[in-house]
Amino acid sequence: MENSKVHAQVLLGTEYNEQLVLDGKDDLYGGLMVEINQPMDSNQFANRLTSSIIKWRQQGKKGIWIKLTIQYANLVESAVKKGFWYHHAEATYLMLVYWIPQTPNTLPVNASHRVGIGALLINDHGEVLVVQEKSGKFKGTGVWKLPTGVVNEREDLCIASIREVKEETGIDSEFVEILGFRQSHNSFFGKSDLFFLCMLKPLSFSVEKQDSEIEAVQWMKMEEYAAQPFVVENEIFNSIAKICLAKKNNDYAGFSAVLNTSGFSSKKSYLYFNSHNLSL
Amino acid sequence: MENSKVHAQVLLGTEYNEQLVLDGKDDLYGGLMVEINQPMDSNQFANRLTSSIIKWRQQGKKGIWIKLTIQYANLVESAVKKGFWYHHAEATYLMLVYWIPQTPNTLPVNASHRVGIGALLINDHGEVLVVQEKSGKFKGTGVWKLPTGVVNEREDLCIASIREVKEETGIDSEFVEILGFRQSHNSFFGKSDLFFLCMLKPLSFSVEKQDSEIEAVQWMKMEEYAAQPFVVENEIFNSIAKICLAKKNNDYAGFSAVLNTSGFSSKKSYLYFNSHNLSL
Repeated sequence: MENSKVHAQVLLGTEYNEQLVLDGKDDLYGGLMVEINQPMDSNQFANRLTSSIIKWRQQGKKGIWIKLTIQYANLVESAVKKGFWYHHAEATYLMLVYWIPQTPNTLPVNASHRVGIGALLINDHGEVLVVQEKSGKFKGTGVWKLPTGVVNEREDLCIASIREVKEETGIDSEFVEILGFRQSHNSFFGKSDLFFLCMLKPLSFSVEKQDSEIEAVQWMKMEEYAAQPFVVENEIFNSIAKICLAKKNNDYAGFSAVLNTSGFSSKKSYLYFNSHNLSL
Repeated sequence: MENSKVHAQVLLGTEYNEQLVLDGKDDLYGGLMVEINQPMDSNQFANRLTSSIIKWRQQGKKGIWIKLTIQYANLVESAVKKGFWYHHAEATYLMLVYWIPQTPNTLPVNASHRVGIGALLINDHGEVLVVQEKSGKFKGTGVWKLPTGVVNEREDLCIASIREVKEETGIDSEFVEILGFRQSHNSFFGKSDLFFLCMLKPLSFSVEKQDSEIEAVQWMKMEEYAAQPFVVENEIFNSIAKICLAKKNNDYAGFSAVLNTSGFSSKKSYLYFNSHNLSL
């Protein structure tokens, strides 16, 4: 990035106008979070940033965060010209960051992974719940596959798997365990991907497909599912089918989910581990 | 978002100037990826977007992506005024997106999770490798904890765990298995977090601490580690210590890592599963 020059210019100043300094909240790491809450002209914003950075440097601040909601897109360029760079963005805002010390920055990294689930449900006849998809790579292939879906931000894997199965197939279920997972890279936009294979216990059996994403849904003999040419010929699908078959035969222990309190707050989060070997 | 008005204005136009239409590459989902590769005045960009959107709509395009590297920060506002919103950002670029059809968008979601590892290493004396951290929540607490770290984008968990242990403690090791994992929410910037507890086999034993992050490092009796008040009193730390103790006593099966070829390319990725129950 071409930020070093701008940085050097800002370093030259030592006097600032206190009235122009932007308000911010200290964070836990010696930094400051600035949220812009009122419309501003971009030149005015540039001037305020100049004064602010001089003061923040004198105060020994480290990482400076600026959160610009999308209605203040007119201010992005001014921040970049002052040496800020992009940290992350969501639909409604852009987060910019600037590191004041001369040491390498220790800013937290952006989210790096998308998370997905696949669901194994077996009914009393030893049949597995499968779907054909309307779009994506499987469109028109005739391949029957396990229901899959993307885990939302702030959604637990065990909850997401139940939700996706209900949405795609109409089947109610409860979470049993994680049978395995795969990590892959260079997925959308170069991000990495974690895919968790979940075992669920069906609580209803009458299928009702979702029209927008799903071409067909049915219960299918597990052996028939595993014998599809696409499954046999593709290593990862074949491995997953073998895990499913082992689970069906009660020869396989996955990771169960247990709610635990976090060390630093009263927040609860799920710990997934092998409860066949250890009870917590 | 206040995009509906802008959207409506654009809808009115049906004529466009072909020479102004921005170049883009079709994606696999009926959309278009536009990368700006030359400096442009923001008014000129706005005009080009107007013509482009009219043409793209007539062509039946769906999602329109605009990738603006940070040196073109001057163009962000124009895109937002035309109805684009933020999809994600990395240090060097901002990705904006616009959905042309009147149907709900099916755009892929942004990365939602950060991924971290904790490492369990046990030496021949039954001692566990532990560290005290210089910053963060554990600073100054005197708590001995397992080495932990953040998994980089495009980095495999099993590789990241070896790297982090080497960086923090100087110990060489090889990956054995995942003993369990925790999913938590509302971590940095509202993102979710996946933390994997990894068992590694030490290949060297002489510790050498990293000065910037680590206050102290040592091998410690496993029972002594597990008996620390902080560990005993905090549910998640206590659970993790119990898993570690069970593993030390050979009473616990985690998930091993096996490289598998993906179904759609020659790309290889790690599948983590219970190889104590099943060989693939």
